[in-house]
Parts: sequence; C-alpha cells; structure tokens
Amino acid sequence: MTRATITHDDLRETRRRIEAYIHHTPVLTSRSLNERVGAEVYVKCESFQRAGSFKIRGATNFISRLSPEEIKRGVVAHSSGNHAQAVALAARTFGARCYIVMPKDAPAIKRQATEGYGAEITLCEPNLESRETVTQKIIDRTGAVLVHPYDHDWTIMGQSTVAQELLEDVPDLDAILVPVSGGGLLAGTCLAAAYHSADIQVYGCEPALADDAYESFRTGKLSSKKPGPTMADGLRAVLCERTFAIIQEYAAGIVRATEDEIRDAMRFYWERMKVVVEPSGATSLAPLLFQRDEIKGKRVGIIASGGNVDFPL
Amino acid sequence: MTRATITHDDLRETRRRIEAYIHHTPVLTSRSLNERVGAEVYVKCESFQRAGSFKIRGATNFISRLSPEEIKRGVVAHSSGNHAQAVALAARTFGARCYIVMPKDAPAIKRQATEGYGAEITLCEPNLESRETVTQKIIDRTGAVLVHPYDHDWTIMGQSTVAQELLEDVPDLDAILVPVSGGGLLAGTCLAAAYHSADIQVYGCEPALADDAYESFRTGKLSSKKPGPTMADGLRAVLCERTFAIIQEYAAGIVRATEDEIRDAMRFYWERMKVVVEPSGATSLAPLLFQRDEIKGKRVGIIASGGNVDFPL
Repeated sequence: MTRATITHDDLRETRRRIEAYIHHTPVLTSRSLNERVGAEVYVKCESFQRAGSFKIRGATNFISRLSPEEIKRGVVAHSSGNHAQAVALAARTFGARCYIVMPKDAPAIKRQATEGYGAEITLCEPNLESRETVTQKIIDRTGAVLVHPYDHDWTIMGQSTVAQELLEDVPDLDAILVPVSGGGLLAGTCLAAAYHSADIQVYGCEPALADDAYESFRTGKLSSKKPGPTMADGLRAVLCERTFAIIQEYAAGIVRATEDEIRDAMRFYWERMKVVVEPSGATSLAPLLFQRDEIKGKRVGIIASGGNVDFPL
Repeated sequence: MTRATITHDDLRETRRRIEAYIHHTPVLTSRSLNERVGAEVYVKCESFQRAGSFKIRGATNFISRLSPEEIKRGVVAHSSGNHAQAVALAARTFGARCYIVMPKDAPAIKRQATEGYGAEITLCEPNLESRETVTQKIIDRTGAVLVHPYDHDWTIMGQSTVAQELLEDVPDLDAILVPVSGGGLLAGTCLAAAYHSADIQVYGCEPALADDAYESFRTGKLSSKKPGPTMADGLRAVLCERTFAIIQEYAAGIVRATEDEIRDAMRFYWERMKVVVEPSGATSLAPLLFQRDEIKGKRVGIIASGGNVDFPL
C-alpha cells in the first residue's frame, strides 16, 4: 500500500463526501505560544470536532461507503475510546446498528458518550488479543462490518481531511506536527501535505513510553514493540504495514515526548489557550514546547487531535 | 448613579476606544446544549479574552482615560485575581507602573500571570478590610490611581462591551444571563441591553453561598450580607450603590446557583464544549442547566466571563 493507491482525487472526493457530517474545526493561534517557541503556530483544534476528536472523519467516510446490505447488518469497532464514539455517531447518522468492543479500563466519559450514541458495548480485557477475539465473535454472530481505526484506505482518506482543511485555512505551512498511534491520522496528513506541496515537513509525535513508530521509522522495519503505560491512552496502538508504508515514504520524522512534556502541553492548552485537549491530542504540541530548535521562525501546524478527557474537578 | 449618567454614546465611544486592545471574543453554540435545555443558547466566551477574562475591558477603558501625570504615578488595584491580571496588562499597554494588592489565598495561576505582566504585588489578608487598608497605604506612598473593579463609571462602561459585541453578533436575544459579583459586568450588560432593545431580559447569576445581590434585589435595599466560601472565588464581592442602582432599574432578576450546579456547569463546558471556564464564569450557565422552565424556546445569551482556573492534572 503506497501513495499510488490513494490518489489526490480520492482525498478531494472524501472531503466533499463527509463535509456535511463533520465540523470544519477552527485554527487557533496564541501570541504567548508564538513568543514562547519563536515560531508562528497554527493549532487545528479537533477537540471541537463532533464526538470530540478527528476520528469521526474516518468513521464517516468508511460507513458512508457501505452497501445497504452492510448497513443493515451493522458495523463493529474495537477502540479505547475516541474511535468508538466516532463509529457509534457515524453509524447512527447512516442508520447502521453498531457494536463496540471496549477495554474495561477506558475512561468513563468515552464509554458513556458511546452508549449515548446508541451503540451496544461489549467490554474486553485491555489488550489487543482480547479486543480482536471479542470483535471476531461479534462479526461471526452478526455479520457486522469491521470499521478499522487505521488499517483501511477509507479510514486514512477520512483522517486526511484534517490536514486538507488546515492547509486550506493556512496554505503556506513549513511543517505539521501530528500525534501518531496506529498511523491513520499521520498517514492521511502525510498524503494531504504531499499533494498540497512537496515542501511541507510532516512529523509524527508519540509518547516515549509507546514509541513503536519511532522504532519502525528509525530501523525501516515495522516494530512489534509493545506500548507502555503512557497517559496518552489514545496512542497505544502500533503502526500496521499500510500506514507504515505511507509514513516511511512521506513523513519527515517521528519525535518522542516524555510524560512530563505531554502533561505540560495539556497544561499550556488549559492555562493559556483555555481549550480542553486530551493527553493524546496534546502530544503534538509537546515537541514544539521542548525541542524547538528546528522550527524557529517557521510556520508550524499542530493537530490537536481530540479533547475527550475525564473532568477532574 | 442611574442610567442617565452613562449614555448610549458613552458605551459606543468606549467600544471604539478599547477595541484595538481587546479580543472580540467568539460566540459558541452547542447542539447538545440546545437539546438539553430546549432553547437556543449563545455562549459569549470571555475565557478567550486577553488575560483570560472580561476584566481587561473595564481596566483598559479606565487606564486609557488617565492623564499623562496619572500614568506616571501609576495605578493600583486590589483583586482576588482576574481584575489584577487585567489592570496589570492594561497598565503595561499604556506604560503605567502597576501595584496590585492580592489576598494571599488567590489561585497561583492568577498571581503568576499578574507578575508576568510586570505588576508589583503586595499580599494581604483575604478580607475586604485588609485589602482596602493595604491599598490605601500604597496610594498614600505613591499617588497611584485606584482602578476600581466595579464602583466606577469607566469600569462599567468597559464591561458593557461584552454585551455590545454579543448583541452585534446575535441581535435578537430574548435574555442574557451574566455572573454577578460587585455588579460591574451585570450593570454594563443591563445598560448595553437596554440601549439595544427594551425586550431583552438580563439576569444576574450568583452563587447561593454569596447571594448579596439576590438579597439586595429582593428587598430593594443594598445588602451587607457577607459572602460565604463559594468555589466561584471571583464572585465574592458585593454590590455597591452605583451598580445596584443600575441593576435595580434594569435587571429582570437575580438567580442563584448551588455549588453542585456551578461544578456541573463547568463540567458541561469541559466535557461537551471543550472550553475551560472558571467556576465564576460558569455560574451563568448553571441556571440554564437546572432551572430552565422560563427560558424554554427562547434565544438566550450566556456570558462565560472567564477561564482562569488552576490546572488540576
């Protein structure tokens, strides 16, 4: 799976296809952020997206392409949270029954929201094996279609619309920083940026505690490194061949953030920009706050990918 | 001090005077909020204002009207936080030295931000007597001009610009809900609304634990009731004759919110709208969430007055 498979026309068609169902989210700027990092920063704020994260884009694109028969059988997804909410909401939009497999340690806010969208939830153990076994059982029983969170072209095309919108609003970016987990958002961002201009450098940002993408990118071989216990609970998936192929070809690099850096990035959003950004979503700001030599004087887009985090007060 | 003293022209002139120094803040809407309360709700989000609250409006208007001699002597303010930051930032804008008297239990984020704007801070005991004594000593020593947080026409005129902007963006509101403490924002909102249309009902919202405005409005006599320990730390001031006169004449009522209602309003902003709103700022949403019979089907403006609250994670 390389660039050739997903064309510029695919991305443009996806954007038209889903735009009625999603928000064109705002791009935020902050004087104090620009002063602190010595760059011009544009934050694409997917906290304000429907269901609280960019995931609704891929899910909407995916489900919108199913046949009436498939819609009737329903859709299934396994997710620690944001993808679950997104699939549940998109399924409701298109009238599909929805089954969600969720690890039992997922944040309460994400579980409740998913139920609120009418999905049927099955809890599983918090590991990939359990997720996949439970999901397969549901597929065997119902014939539901799996909506994969990243290992599918339709998902990647959907996630590419974040960067498409960002580059429409701020066309002349030098770099884009984006969280990476399974790589759907990063791969989509890479493609959107590459089709927009060869000069934009796209960096994936991941927790140092779950740095399989860093390892894969560095070695050129898909890493099977197990993710550790990062607070960025949405970034504990690992790249697949499909996303890695795109990332390897188009990404400028993968940068890692410590837990303290991720927390401080969340704090910056909270204190200075007054926006709720979840740890996973704040991971793309962390490198800018702490490892900023390379971006001095540049125009940098940051994808704050979501805002679903339990209310702490 | 009644309406006659502050004219429509005063409000319009104030808006032109300060607009270069403040943000025209966004009006947010939320499908889930509208569904929950059965009304069309427009949130004027002063969390995104410079220095994190509406207070910069009154402070800017006030300091912009001082003489060169007064600017040279400097300005002084006593405040639990938001007014302090605002006066410090406005003083820096106009090149005035700035002295801030702050209770020693003020939130750390507010103290640090005030120092960051270059103000000289003197801590005092957390009561009005101590604040006023310490402030008077600074005035005696330096000749600094007191920038009162609400008991001055210039302050009230400045705060009126929140509602002026809101009514420009959403002209046909039926009601506006606004937090009330010393009454500067509420009085300014009352005047802006009255000059815009006689049909807009303006309600002050205050913590049940600090309900002097409710008492004053109910009895028609300025209450001297001491504020209790509400989490809405910015709403512990009491009305003065100047603000009460305007509120008595133009407000539709004062509604009270319990601590649980204020917390749930903050939670709503956090979970559903992804915006950081401080307890004081969320007090104006609480009545809508919990006492909503009177506003069913109406078009309601909510002033979320600020977003300065310590990062809890």
